[in-house]
This record gives sequence, C-alpha cells and structure tokens, in this order.
Amino acid sequence: MPQREASSGDLPERVTIWEVGPRDGLQNEQTVVGLETKLEFLRRLAGAGLTTLEATSFVHPKWVPQLADADDLLAKLDRRPGVKYPVLVPNERGLDRALALGVESIAIFGSATETFARKNLNRSYDEQFAMFEPVVRRARHEGLEVRAYLSMCFGDPWEGAVPVEQVANAGRRLLDMGCFQLSLGDTIGVATPGHVEAVVGAFGDVTKLAVHFHDTYGQALSNTLAALKAGVTTVDSSAGGLGGCPYAKAATGNLATEDLVWMLDGLGIEHGVDLDALVRTSAWMAQQLGRPSPSRVVKALTGG
Amino acid sequence: MPQREASSGDLPERVTIWEVGPRDGLQNEQTVVGLETKLEFLRRLAGAGLTTLEATSFVHPKWVPQLADADDLLAKLDRRPGVKYPVLVPNERGLDRALALGVESIAIFGSATETFARKNLNRSYDEQFAMFEPVVRRARHEGLEVRAYLSMCFGDPWEGAVPVEQVANAGRRLLDMGCFQLSLGDTIGVATPGHVEAVVGAFGDVTKLAVHFHDTYGQALSNTLAALKAGVTTVDSSAGGLGGCPYAKAATGNLATEDLVWMLDGLGIEHGVDLDALVRTSAWMAQQLGRPSPSRVVKALTGG
Repeated sequence: MPQREASSGDLPERVTIWEVGPRDGLQNEQTVVGLETKLEFLRRLAGAGLTTLEATSFVHPKWVPQLADADDLLAKLDRRPGVKYPVLVPNERGLDRALALGVESIAIFGSATETFARKNLNRSYDEQFAMFEPVVRRARHEGLEVRAYLSMCFGDPWEGAVPVEQVANAGRRLLDMGCFQLSLGDTIGVATPGHVEAVVGAFGDVTKLAVHFHDTYGQALSNTLAALKAGVTTVDSSAGGLGGCPYAKAATGNLATEDLVWMLDGLGIEHGVDLDALVRTSAWMAQQLGRPSPSRVVKALTGG
Repeated sequence: MPQREASSGDLPERVTIWEVGPRDGLQNEQTVVGLETKLEFLRRLAGAGLTTLEATSFVHPKWVPQLADADDLLAKLDRRPGVKYPVLVPNERGLDRALALGVESIAIFGSATETFARKNLNRSYDEQFAMFEPVVRRARHEGLEVRAYLSMCFGDPWEGAVPVEQVANAGRRLLDMGCFQLSLGDTIGVATPGHVEAVVGAFGDVTKLAVHFHDTYGQALSNTLAALKAGVTTVDSSAGGLGGCPYAKAATGNLATEDLVWMLDGLGIEHGVDLDALVRTSAWMAQQLGRPSPSRVVKALTGG
C-alpha cells in the first residue's frame, strides 16, 4: 500500500470507477473467453467492490466476435444489488435487444471526428447524431440510463489533431439528447495532461464528464490525474489492463484499474475497491487468457 | 507526436533529463552488455540530444558485475562537447579512481532510512554522512561537481512508511556538504502524487532537487507531473525503461525516457531530445539485450 498523502490541489473526495474490462477489455483480447468465465469474472469484480461493470456489447458479432454471447450472458448474469451492468448499444436494434433482456443502463459510442464516424459507424459526423437521437429518446422513455462514449477526443489516426471545440461540440450534442454522462475517450492514447485540461475545460459543467484513457504511450494515469484536478469524478479503467496486450503492436492499452486504485489510495480518494481482491481477479483472468497482465500493480503484487 | 497543450498549472519551461540508462539501467539488467555496445549506447544517447549521461559506476564489481568495465569505459569514452558523463562513486576509493580517470562529475548514493543504509552501505543512517563528507569535500576541492542520490524517500521495503521529515533531514545534510543537486529516489516505486508534493515541499528551495521514480506500480509519470508542478526541473529517467525487466517479479522499472519525453512534448516543455533518435537507440539496445523494451512509447512506435 502506498503511504497516504493528499495532494494540495483540488481533488475529489471520491471517484467512481467505471469498469470496462468485461466489455472494452475482452472485446480487444485475442483469446475468446467462454461464457462461464465471463460470468465468473463479473461476479469476482462485483465482489471486489466495483459498482459499475460494463458487461457486454450488442455490436454485431461480425465486428466483435469475442462478445457474441451477449444475450446468453445477460440472461444468466447474477446481478449483485447496488451494482449496475451497462451494455454497449450501437443502434435501435441493439436497444430492442437491451429492452427485451431487461437491461437498465446502456452506452452509445460516438465519434469526435468525421473519419472515425465513417469508419466505425458508417455515418458522417453529423449523421451519427441522427442515428443516436431515437436510441436515446426511446431508451430514456423506457426508463433506461444512457451514457455516451465519445472516441478520438485527443487525436485521430487519420486526421491527426482534433480541435478542442469540435470535441466539445460533439459532446454537448450527445449530452443535450439526454445522456446522463459523457466519457471522453483517448482512443489512440496520445493525450497529455495539458490537453486533458483543455478538453475538460471546454465543457462548462464537468459533473457529467468521465474520462477514458489508453496507455499506449504510458500517459493514462498522468492524464487521469489531470482530469481529477480538473474536477472529473468518474474514471474508466479495465481490470488488469485488459484489452491491451503488452506484446502487440496495436496495443490500445486500457488504463489498468489496479494502477488507478493505487494512485487513488495514495491520494486518499475513496473508491470502494478492495485492491487485493481485484488483483486476485485479474491474475485469475490472466491465467484464463494465457498471458501476463499488463497492469504494473498486478505484476508487482503477483510476480507475474 | 502528441497535440501540444500547455497545462494551466505552474510548469517549468524547460526540463533537464538526467539519463541513467547506461548506469542505473544496465546495472539492473540480467544480460551483461559488452564494452563496445556500452560506448555505442552512450554515443547514440548523446546524438539524440541528451546532455547528462550517467555513464557507469565505481561500486565494486562483486555487487555490480554488469559495470565491471568502468575504468575501460571511461578511458575509451568519446566525450561529446556539452554533454556531461557523471559516474557513481560509493566512497573515497571510488573517488581516487574517478580523479585518476579525469571524471568531472560524480554522484554519491545515500539512504533516507536506517535499514537500507545498513544493507546497502554497511553503515548506520548517521555513519553514512561521515562516510560521504570527505568524498564530497575532496571532490569539490578538485573541482568536481557532486550529485547526491537519496534512496527510499517514499517507502522502504523493511521499514514501510518513511517520515517526510526524515527524508528532508537526510537530504539537507547531503546538500549542506556541498552537493549541487539532490535526487529524491522512489526506490521501490510506491510513491503517489500527493506524497511527491509533500516530500518536495519539505525542502524550502526546490532548485537543487531532482526526482527519480520507478514504475513498479505504474506511478512514475504521474509522480513526475506532480514534481514538475511543485517546481522540480530535473528528472531522472532511463532510455527504453532499462533496468526494469517487464517480466521479472522484482521489476524496479525505471521511468522510461521516451514516456517522459512524450509527456513533456505534449505539455510544450523543452527538453532538447530527438524522440525518434532516442526510440531508435532504445530499440537497438533492446535487440542487444534480447528482449522488448518496457517503454510504452518504444513499444508503440516500433511495434515491439
């Protein structure tokens, strides 16, 4: 455990960790994990104190074969009281599935750039909002909570730099539809702390913001610190750093939940997670995947 | 390259990188690198724009067999104008060797804790100062620049928590001897940003401070950011993250110079390093060592 010393800056007393390992993590792993293992993973994560577990995705299995068992998973999911299990929903058909399965929390996935909107959503930048609008409206009408992801907020592999005002424009449009939260994604991991301040600062109200950093260039935790100092209180991370194979070229590298928890512990920020239980869970999942965890904390505490 | 956005906080305009790869990095690698490779490494690092290269160590080869060729290396070293090549000197005998070889810059290595002083120096906490005092006095009399390292500033594997005032006391005693700089070491990698602020803040004058973070728990770059915001302008790092094998249990994990440079670039802080040339150098050294670099930037930019 780190020695606890609060920071002099303004930091939140409590941070909500939005655990994306079961969805964003597993969908980017080479190894396909079986249904029972996924259910056990979700049980263990809830047991470790995580209260938001992004469980799976309704993106077509052609694109995300790792999560082709989404319906079965939701049918068999042993929901722990006090824990929410959001599901990624790409469109109205996905919403139909979510409603049929009793999902209470969904997430949509927009793009801050034209090129990625076309490549990932097969829509123009403007058309994506037209696609999401009826999804959000109907979901809210049915009493669901809707989160919006916004990808490529800090750089785009095709377009390069992404203007801060463009990110703020896309984000506001998603929030104005009625999304309760906007997760600002550094999809290619290029952000640095001043850039994080600039993007977060472009939103007048930070209470609806979350951040989603990738560790491709080793910056995820520094960027998280900058976001916390800018007032953000929800942070996306992936147990064991799932989703970023440390040996692959295109290592997207989600921020590891354990590395985040270590920093929060040191700063005296509450998070509700039992680090030892979480590390055991990630070590177990690394065994299922047949490779070491890329999380530095998991490595250090398990020798793996 | 990251999109450049300055931070709102007080950050230095320029940072000096104290490159420790050739000494602290290579001494902790399993593979022993040959003399010609070390000389080539130093040439390439200087060519990449680094201006402080900790070249080697006079610690007895029984303890650091990887650097047993220190005399030969210094005799053959092709010194580049404007670059300094400090050498670690443990005691008066080491100073004799340094003086005989025309070394102009040395570093001593103290401990902030009693236990580590005994284990690493075979002296008590107080006795270490008596050992260093004549080294520093004579070195300065001979016109040498002396840096002091202070280890275990943020936690000790045997003692646990280390009081901030104890760190400040040890550091001041080393500075008062005449050391021009004090490098605060997180030897076991447990520091977090608030703790960094506390330790740095315990010194009235930060201009003589440097920081030396290990990435064992993934915190090195966040801690560096905290130190920069606290006014520190010299940062120790290791090209390619040398010294921390990503697969070993006791991965000490030096902060990778490339990951630091990426953050400084994004923040618009000058450092003088050519990132591409540095990445090529670290990729080449990884080949010599027969293993991938643990630096995320090196991995991302070379696919390795």
